[in-house]
Amino acid sequence: MNYAFSDKINPLKPSAIREILKYASNPDIIPFAAGNPASESFPVEIMAKISADIYANDPIPALQYGISEGYAPLIADLKARNKSHFNIGRDFDDTVILSGATQAMDLSTKILCNEGDVVICESPSFIGSLNVFRSYNTKLVGVPMDDDGMNIEALEAAIKANRNVRFVYTIPTFQNPSGKTMPLHKRKAMYEICKKYGVLILEDNPYGELRFAGEDVPTIKSFDEDGIVIYVGSFSKTLSSGIRLGFCVAPKPIIAKMTVAKQCSDVHTNMFFQILAHKFLTEYDFDAQVKKVQSIYGRKSKLMLDGAKAHFNSRVKVVTPEGGLFVWCEMPEGTDITKLTKAALDRKVAIVPGSAFLVDTSEESFAIRLNYSTPSDEQIVRGMEILGEVIKEELK
Amino acid sequence: MNYAFSDKINPLKPSAIREILKYASNPDIIPFAAGNPASESFPVEIMAKISADIYANDPIPALQYGISEGYAPLIADLKARNKSHFNIGRDFDDTVILSGATQAMDLSTKILCNEGDVVICESPSFIGSLNVFRSYNTKLVGVPMDDDGMNIEALEAAIKANRNVRFVYTIPTFQNPSGKTMPLHKRKAMYEICKKYGVLILEDNPYGELRFAGEDVPTIKSFDEDGIVIYVGSFSKTLSSGIRLGFCVAPKPIIAKMTVAKQCSDVHTNMFFQILAHKFLTEYDFDAQVKKVQSIYGRKSKLMLDGAKAHFNSRVKVVTPEGGLFVWCEMPEGTDITKLTKAALDRKVAIVPGSAFLVDTSEESFAIRLNYSTPSDEQIVRGMEILGEVIKEELK
Repeated sequence: MNYAFSDKINPLKPSAIREILKYASNPDIIPFAAGNPASESFPVEIMAKISADIYANDPIPALQYGISEGYAPLIADLKARNKSHFNIGRDFDDTVILSGATQAMDLSTKILCNEGDVVICESPSFIGSLNVFRSYNTKLVGVPMDDDGMNIEALEAAIKANRNVRFVYTIPTFQNPSGKTMPLHKRKAMYEICKKYGVLILEDNPYGELRFAGEDVPTIKSFDEDGIVIYVGSFSKTLSSGIRLGFCVAPKPIIAKMTVAKQCSDVHTNMFFQILAHKFLTEYDFDAQVKKVQSIYGRKSKLMLDGAKAHFNSRVKVVTPEGGLFVWCEMPEGTDITKLTKAALDRKVAIVPGSAFLVDTSEESFAIRLNYSTPSDEQIVRGMEILGEVIKEELK
Repeated sequence: MNYAFSDKINPLKPSAIREILKYASNPDIIPFAAGNPASESFPVEIMAKISADIYANDPIPALQYGISEGYAPLIADLKARNKSHFNIGRDFDDTVILSGATQAMDLSTKILCNEGDVVICESPSFIGSLNVFRSYNTKLVGVPMDDDGMNIEALEAAIKANRNVRFVYTIPTFQNPSGKTMPLHKRKAMYEICKKYGVLILEDNPYGELRFAGEDVPTIKSFDEDGIVIYVGSFSKTLSSGIRLGFCVAPKPIIAKMTVAKQCSDVHTNMFFQILAHKFLTEYDFDAQVKKVQSIYGRKSKLMLDGAKAHFNSRVKVVTPEGGLFVWCEMPEGTDITKLTKAALDRKVAIVPGSAFLVDTSEESFAIRLNYSTPSDEQIVRGMEILGEVIKEELK
């Protein structure tokens, strides 16, 4: 039989980095290409204890159907923590628990966009989210990145040039793939422009708590007095990625529609780990766990940056992250990045070429993305040595 | 701000039974309206043991990102079990692990349907799935149910009368809400008609393993030699519903597209419970667990049917299920079902009016759906007594 697929899905292909990521399971390959949280950051002992407690004392709510909104005590915890820690959440906002942060992009696009509607995003940006937007046949418009995040003039021009712009997708803190953080004045400028044109902001903040250097910058949602920001958070980097647990804070009418859409997607998020997260937040020291993760990433990023300093050609511009998972390296213009990536893989180091993250993947990028959370400390040290040699060879 | 929603989501409302289900959390109400698996069917002790084993011996794969296809050993288990137990799966088929069975309806609709395309389904049918189809702005065409499932002549007429029919959605075994099972000759007739017109079949089988009487009827997928059947299975009723674990067996090109779509939905299914299910299937006696569930539902359905026999007016036609979760009761034509439902709720028995499951909810239905898996044995006995009195009052 000849299977015909929908217009929105037919052109969609598995992401380009999936091919590279296949090598990540090969233990001989140094995995600078992945984006997995550090396995040593998972609080295994506490999770084991809480799980045993759930089974021993009150297993049924953890194994039975729940409501699409999420486990009410966890919603209450998140509302309190987001307010006290980050000034996130107004009276007009609500919170929904999701099966990972990606589901927030999925449901936001589904409830807000008709086919052909426009989504504006940073270019480069997180390919997983870009593919979500593409999967609803939206028109993606990329805005170039400055050293301090999305170019604000280009953003306004993009909003003016396109009809039916439904939202601007941004990762303002420790952006994926660039590691860049947008300063407060630019966040405020972005907010004012979006407010002026009646465009929503989808603020994706999976790495926000992973700061190991510099000063916190307030999230855009923290100054959203007009109800134009959909804020997305995740437990993937602070607790565990495999359990698929994220959340979304947005104005009540948006959360209500997302909840209906979630009912039509996976009904509700895994109850067991919603209850586990609630117990972690209320009976254990979750902030201490976050601090532990920060210190792991501080150490690993330093190892990688030290390696770049010691071994990379001085013409390579290395973006120094203050948090998150990635080091972005901009090679001199004209560098053959495809050749460089292949040469690195031949030497058993997997990296991702920057072009994989572009909205228009036929555009050129002379950057590569390096991940320091997945490899071991030894792999980071050895991998940077090898990469230095590969780059030297390419740039000679 | 005035929020504008997409054409596909804007008309969608929370399901009508959600309102009734809210009463289910009130312990004073006898919950004949819900569709929760019996809590006593969850294998808590084994799940606790396997969980402790995972944490103690190999926690990282359970807490780290996985691939969208699902945990490879669980896929292998399911392929083997589906083949040996049900003759499901050919060389042209593949299997994907999903976050509950509803996700199969979600992804199937997303990959197969443009807005306005037609989905044919039984009427009445499972409202959760109908809302999934609606959430992509498909056109739902309902085919009436005979005592032995979808009317086959009406099915063929519906396929002929509509352009762009993408698939026929059916729950052939212990259908929700009617509890009816389609005999083999009708399944074959449905298959031949769909083959003739090049229409796919989406076979939803969440209750298939819950048979406590009568003889097994082969699934439609078991005789799919042409690759036209998408088969959906679930662990929700055999293991636990709160963990959100289901799967889909379909021709490889369809599974490949579903996998890409799943990447754009929740990336992958909860790893911890995929590994737990794998260990259950390989290290414990899953078939014995299924038998335990069957015997619980056999006992509970008998209690409910005995109650109907003892207390219901003889003009009520009670459909005797051989498995699944529901007893469908057809009242004499003209009965005011809205009034009956309200009268039952006033007496603290929650039931669902049959009209909630119709494709066109403005049509009339003189049936009610009763669930026996959620209430306790005592609640079933007492609830049927009360319902008998309420019906007597309505029919007098």
